[in-house]
Amino acid sequence: MPEQPSDVAPPSSVAALLEEIVDIGTDQTRGGYSRPVYSGAELDLRDWFIEHATRRSLDVETDRNGIIWAWWNPTGAPLRDAVVTGSHLDSVPGGGAFDGPLGVASALAALDQLRRDGLRATRPLGLAVFPEEEGSRFGVACLGSRLMAGDIDPVKAARLVDDDGITFAEAAERHGLDPSGLGRDEEALSRIGTFVELHVEQGRGLVDLGQPVAVGTSVLGHGRWRLRITGQGNHAGTTLMDDRRDPMVAAGAIITAIRDVARAQPQARATVGRIVPVPGGTNVIASKVDLWLDVRHPDDAVTAAVVADIAGRAAAIASTEGCATHLVEESVSPTVQFDAGLRDRLGAALPDAPRLATGAGHDAGVLSAHLPTGMLFVRNPTGVSHSPDEHVPDADAEAGATALATVLRGLLGA
Amino acid sequence: MPEQPSDVAPPSSVAALLEEIVDIGTDQTRGGYSRPVYSGAELDLRDWFIEHATRRSLDVETDRNGIIWAWWNPTGAPLRDAVVTGSHLDSVPGGGAFDGPLGVASALAALDQLRRDGLRATRPLGLAVFPEEEGSRFGVACLGSRLMAGDIDPVKAARLVDDDGITFAEAAERHGLDPSGLGRDEEALSRIGTFVELHVEQGRGLVDLGQPVAVGTSVLGHGRWRLRITGQGNHAGTTLMDDRRDPMVAAGAIITAIRDVARAQPQARATVGRIVPVPGGTNVIASKVDLWLDVRHPDDAVTAAVVADIAGRAAAIASTEGCATHLVEESVSPTVQFDAGLRDRLGAALPDAPRLATGAGHDAGVLSAHLPTGMLFVRNPTGVSHSPDEHVPDADAEAGATALATVLRGLLGA
Repeated sequence: MPEQPSDVAPPSSVAALLEEIVDIGTDQTRGGYSRPVYSGAELDLRDWFIEHATRRSLDVETDRNGIIWAWWNPTGAPLRDAVVTGSHLDSVPGGGAFDGPLGVASALAALDQLRRDGLRATRPLGLAVFPEEEGSRFGVACLGSRLMAGDIDPVKAARLVDDDGITFAEAAERHGLDPSGLGRDEEALSRIGTFVELHVEQGRGLVDLGQPVAVGTSVLGHGRWRLRITGQGNHAGTTLMDDRRDPMVAAGAIITAIRDVARAQPQARATVGRIVPVPGGTNVIASKVDLWLDVRHPDDAVTAAVVADIAGRAAAIASTEGCATHLVEESVSPTVQFDAGLRDRLGAALPDAPRLATGAGHDAGVLSAHLPTGMLFVRNPTGVSHSPDEHVPDADAEAGATALATVLRGLLGA
Repeated sequence: MPEQPSDVAPPSSVAALLEEIVDIGTDQTRGGYSRPVYSGAELDLRDWFIEHATRRSLDVETDRNGIIWAWWNPTGAPLRDAVVTGSHLDSVPGGGAFDGPLGVASALAALDQLRRDGLRATRPLGLAVFPEEEGSRFGVACLGSRLMAGDIDPVKAARLVDDDGITFAEAAERHGLDPSGLGRDEEALSRIGTFVELHVEQGRGLVDLGQPVAVGTSVLGHGRWRLRITGQGNHAGTTLMDDRRDPMVAAGAIITAIRDVARAQPQARATVGRIVPVPGGTNVIASKVDLWLDVRHPDDAVTAAVVADIAGRAAAIASTEGCATHLVEESVSPTVQFDAGLRDRLGAALPDAPRLATGAGHDAGVLSAHLPTGMLFVRNPTGVSHSPDEHVPDADAEAGATALATVLRGLLGA
């Protein structure tokens, strides 16, 4: 016999759920939140989610790749062909409050609505939290979903290193995972029939359209590269300007060239958000500079051409400064079109919702190569993301959770 | 009765002394040495010096600004009009083995030579070790000598902050100093009649002249400024190139402009060796970028004009990117001409030694405003400094110590 409305607590509001974690991982220096995977802050957020799942009598487990699953399976059927929703709890450094947690809180709130309404689900519903979606600590975005899907060599993943020299294997092990268990997880994959991720919009599409919720159509192809520029370290006072081989001067011109290349290519985006001179002293000409390059374009061939163009210009610029360059690919994700059938089902369930592409990477994009996935986006009035300025009004957050409940209701089969 | 040669151990060689500290503070990431003031490495080096001073029966004290003094005072006269030699033990990040420690080891070795030769000193000889000469941890170079001389407000100095948010007061206190004791030290100053600092040359002057040792003539005026460029943090994937206010793009063009300004001004040097984007994520357009500017020129008015020119160009460049700039002076030291009488005495004692100006700052430069100071430079075949490539051959190091002993012998009055 299915649950009756009287069995369950009244639905949580998304705003109330997010209010509970408002103090976790705040960054006094950068503003906003810094919640890198397996940091104290991210672990606190995981505990918060597990407590909510447990309070809702869901079956909770953390799998061998560190993904948390919370199952609502009222029929008691085997975990097959489940509908899964969720997102991530890690953040970029100095990020906003909604990128990730909005999808997790909305999953909890949508489940509450379905149970309040006495939904007779014919399929299991899973709530999932993916680790290292941002790639902010170990450099590879969507690391949890990539590992589960077998899209990254687990030996290579285990050796990824954070800024403190800690490997991903060590960080996972401290969290209780066995590094030898990392990698493709057939069982976890086989349980998922459909995955829907709700996420704050990271642009102004919904603001311009005057709607609170959109159905996602595609994820822009993107990749990350590390460019190392090597010169000659020396003393800032004693070395004449003409005697220098200064990789920072080369880096300055290369950053300008990167922007010029991207600007010349419609729809391309190229960003340098991270740069590390070595040794990094005020009175020291650097001996080398590492900079990280993020490039995106809807056409993967154009992305590759943009990177090749940048690599060529960087080498030429460095050469004029007596420096050398070395470019290393860290990760590349092709452009993803979400499953057309699922997209149309979501659109039919939400007839007012516009359809939007996104320039941001998501676990739903990684998993789309393996199973039907879709996304919902919730309006962000600032249009700004990966920043403390990211925002979602309470009413839009509730509209998002209700839209997610509507979609899940259709997928779970009333 | 003065000491007899039989009272003292045979002189140490400079090479043997430096070999004792070759493993302290090595930097596996950058190469070379990272020995910031009051780090474990720098404290180990201080202990090493104090042990050597104690072994030589010198009177050792650490004063209220953290300067170590080791006194050889065979006549037992009051500590007045002393001859002082020494240098520093802190390093830039990833620095060489000689910048600082060569002067300290040469001071010990020169003392050994004077005692071996049975010098009847009529004045006390002090060996000094100055803290935070490089300014690598707290941003102000020659902080120890500036504090002693009263050239920096001790309240301001106490509030200087390192990259981990630790104040200079806290670091000094952990080392056993009372922060309220920081500041001008009349007693310490009054003891010094003459200060001579031996240092590795940080350029190719002696290489080109074919000499192992030079007498210093002047220190190039120099200063440090922090330039903050403020824009709009946002998502690297969702923000179109034309919608950006990216302070990193502005920084790239500003670094190029800084080099252009310095190149156009004969004898000027301008360097960006340190840059910190905030938040510093690969997939994040930075909200602000801090970069540090080191500018030097023999004419202080030209230094000021170069900085003003850079500030104007930086503001204009930032404006075209929708960003703003804010420039803060961290420290400025005017060009110093060493005491002419002392310089001529050193030159007379070392008739083969050429005279050389230096582009690098030194404690001898700071103290020159308060008492007669001079310097000796020792040949560096690479011409490179603030780098693991800095080098001094053993024979030149011994020639330097012998030259220092010769100079001290004349000053101490045989």
